[in-house]
Amino acid sequence: MARIVMKFGGTSMAGIERIRNVAGRVKAEVDAGNQVAVVVSAMAGETDRLVGFCKEAAPLADPREYDVVVASGEQVTSGLLAITLQAMGCPARSWLGWQLPIRTSDAHASARIAEIDTVALDKALASGEVAVIPGFQGMEEGGRVTTLGRGGSDTSAVAVAAAMRADRCDIYTDVDGVYTTDPRIVPKAKKLSHVTYEEMLELASVGAKVLQTRSVGLAMKEGVRVRVLSSFDNPASGNNDGTLIVSDEEIAKISKELNMESQLITGIAYDKNEAKITLTDVPDKPGAVSAIFGPLADANINVDMIIQNIAHNAGSTDVTFTVPGAELARSLDVLDKARGEIGYGALTHDTKVCKVSVVGVGMRSHAGVAATMFKALAERGINIQAISTSEIKVSVLIDADFTELAVRVLHTAYELDGEDQAG
Amino acid sequence: MARIVMKFGGTSMAGIERIRNVAGRVKAEVDAGNQVAVVVSAMAGETDRLVGFCKEAAPLADPREYDVVVASGEQVTSGLLAITLQAMGCPARSWLGWQLPIRTSDAHASARIAEIDTVALDKALASGEVAVIPGFQGMEEGGRVTTLGRGGSDTSAVAVAAAMRADRCDIYTDVDGVYTTDPRIVPKAKKLSHVTYEEMLELASVGAKVLQTRSVGLAMKEGVRVRVLSSFDNPASGNNDGTLIVSDEEIAKISKELNMESQLITGIAYDKNEAKITLTDVPDKPGAVSAIFGPLADANINVDMIIQNIAHNAGSTDVTFTVPGAELARSLDVLDKARGEIGYGALTHDTKVCKVSVVGVGMRSHAGVAATMFKALAERGINIQAISTSEIKVSVLIDADFTELAVRVLHTAYELDGEDQAG
Repeated sequence: MARIVMKFGGTSMAGIERIRNVAGRVKAEVDAGNQVAVVVSAMAGETDRLVGFCKEAAPLADPREYDVVVASGEQVTSGLLAITLQAMGCPARSWLGWQLPIRTSDAHASARIAEIDTVALDKALASGEVAVIPGFQGMEEGGRVTTLGRGGSDTSAVAVAAAMRADRCDIYTDVDGVYTTDPRIVPKAKKLSHVTYEEMLELASVGAKVLQTRSVGLAMKEGVRVRVLSSFDNPASGNNDGTLIVSDEEIAKISKELNMESQLITGIAYDKNEAKITLTDVPDKPGAVSAIFGPLADANINVDMIIQNIAHNAGSTDVTFTVPGAELARSLDVLDKARGEIGYGALTHDTKVCKVSVVGVGMRSHAGVAATMFKALAERGINIQAISTSEIKVSVLIDADFTELAVRVLHTAYELDGEDQAG
Repeated sequence: MARIVMKFGGTSMAGIERIRNVAGRVKAEVDAGNQVAVVVSAMAGETDRLVGFCKEAAPLADPREYDVVVASGEQVTSGLLAITLQAMGCPARSWLGWQLPIRTSDAHASARIAEIDTVALDKALASGEVAVIPGFQGMEEGGRVTTLGRGGSDTSAVAVAAAMRADRCDIYTDVDGVYTTDPRIVPKAKKLSHVTYEEMLELASVGAKVLQTRSVGLAMKEGVRVRVLSSFDNPASGNNDGTLIVSDEEIAKISKELNMESQLITGIAYDKNEAKITLTDVPDKPGAVSAIFGPLADANINVDMIIQNIAHNAGSTDVTFTVPGAELARSLDVLDKARGEIGYGALTHDTKVCKVSVVGVGMRSHAGVAATMFKALAERGINIQAISTSEIKVSVLIDADFTELAVRVLHTAYELDGEDQAG
């Protein structure tokens, strides 16, 4: 017997026929002798509909009331899944955020889960009843409804799994796992059977939109074993193991057991939602850099890649960096206001850029990863505009027109190509 | 300063533009110095959509989960009205059924309100904040969501008004008040400025679908002054006083103050949802009647009009009575099973019947009301199939084809005709 959390997204819950499919998968886990809690999203499109109402009512809706409105979508699917499970002869009940309760901060519309009370939950699970829990919602100390922000249902699932000490948190979605890269760009991309939390964080934050980044961070912190798999594959086909997201240590153990060689590079990610900003003729003196990045940090803008160009005039330099595309306008505004203090010449920006990253825990113990990357890109004439590295990642900023070419070149260079999926 | 409950139905809450109209009416009451609680229905069509999901998931859905699903509609409109009021500069917050709480019985899907905690409510109102309360929903002792059954929002409003000792409970709907009869049948029907609880109960239960019967019964029991009025009339026109539903005593006082003659008959109602059942050749002996109506009572079927025909064979008689049309199939089944015990000859039924009623507290002190009715109908050749009377009502059962004719004839006979509304 295992304790399992199963999480189903909006596409999996869109309509009663799909909810029946979900109920079938849940029942299979129960029939296999497991204790199961299910975390559900609202029907696809429903949250957008509710958010639309709020925006129409007031452009800046009170987030406390916004939460009351948008939390209703998951309430509906929780009740419907419980009804459907019961109709299949599987005891089930819904537990709304305020009923468990799922205690959160009072940061309405982007609350953080503080604690999940498991007294009722443990009792229900022990009695063989499936607990159906609406994702995305909770309750703050004053007893008002909160929501966790968009995509928060993944985080709810991981938090429930941590609270009930689940053996596994299965995130069912509309893809069948995490791939070495985007299969729409590289048909020979391979599904990864497992990936570390750290790798997943890098892959997710740089473009592989499978799991909400916050939920991966929480899973890493709480040591929750997460599996991503498809809710549309035929479970009987045996080809639906998805991708397991676990710790370094567990993967090392798995690799050892299976006598697998550890991979150098796990995947190639890309992110077109970056914007490049360049300040020319910045005085080459102490304090100049902090005059630029201080105001940006104060405005809560996340600066990623930074390069300081070689000075072309005596005593001055160019500074280039990237910010999230959505923060570009605000960044330019901040820099414009700080012009006097920084004393730059011109302020230019470019959104036609893409960050391409090679990710893998294997690179910790291998030199030459970056060199392979630069060489492969250079051979195809792809110019590198900026570079950033971390312990398990090397990223380069390139002209967005070269995105697909770069991803394909790197996928081959690191020997990630599998069989063609397109055929 | 007065304490007022305002209740808005689904048509009034259908979409943000209409919710803005509602918010405008609420703000006007606040600006006039009143303390206001608002009870809202789900958007028109929304509850049907949610009920449809439940039925699709399972024909006999667990009513506890059904309640979780269908209660969400009012949650959405509560939040949206609070947002809209705030945007108009009117402090407001939503109070969900479990937040106040509104304590109910655990008869899910048709729960009864037991008690409404007014501590939080009183505090909010005293601070000048509008309390927006979802109608139709509550919480049972175990902390699960309940609903009051269809149309339950009227009952919520009256219960809130009773709990907070409101001076008035204004029910805004898509008609502008209670009429002497259905204006679609009699264009000369007049809007009643006031009507007693008892009259309203008779008018509602026999066809004038303005207010949910249960809410009128509760208002009578708790002495809540109810006003029915339109949410679509222009409030500035001054022609939107609606109909006041109060006690006999208050109406007597109003009539005295205005030096008005008290009406003999208040209105004419009709109900096509009755079914007539006849048992022939029932043994004319003690116990025969209880052998018929005992099993129907056991099956919780409400028998209305009863006539025992004159025996045409020695020692046997025919018994005719009416039941709600929706209960006909079940009634026939009960009677078929009880055939041995009753010992009747044939069992026939007729759904092409209509109950027409004249209603008025004035008839308590006047003889001859029924005679006027029978004479007026006889003059037009309308055959009376059954009769029932109460202290403030005389009802006759007729062929449904004569419904409109009978209503018009009676409306004129009791001198209720006003100016033609159709012109």
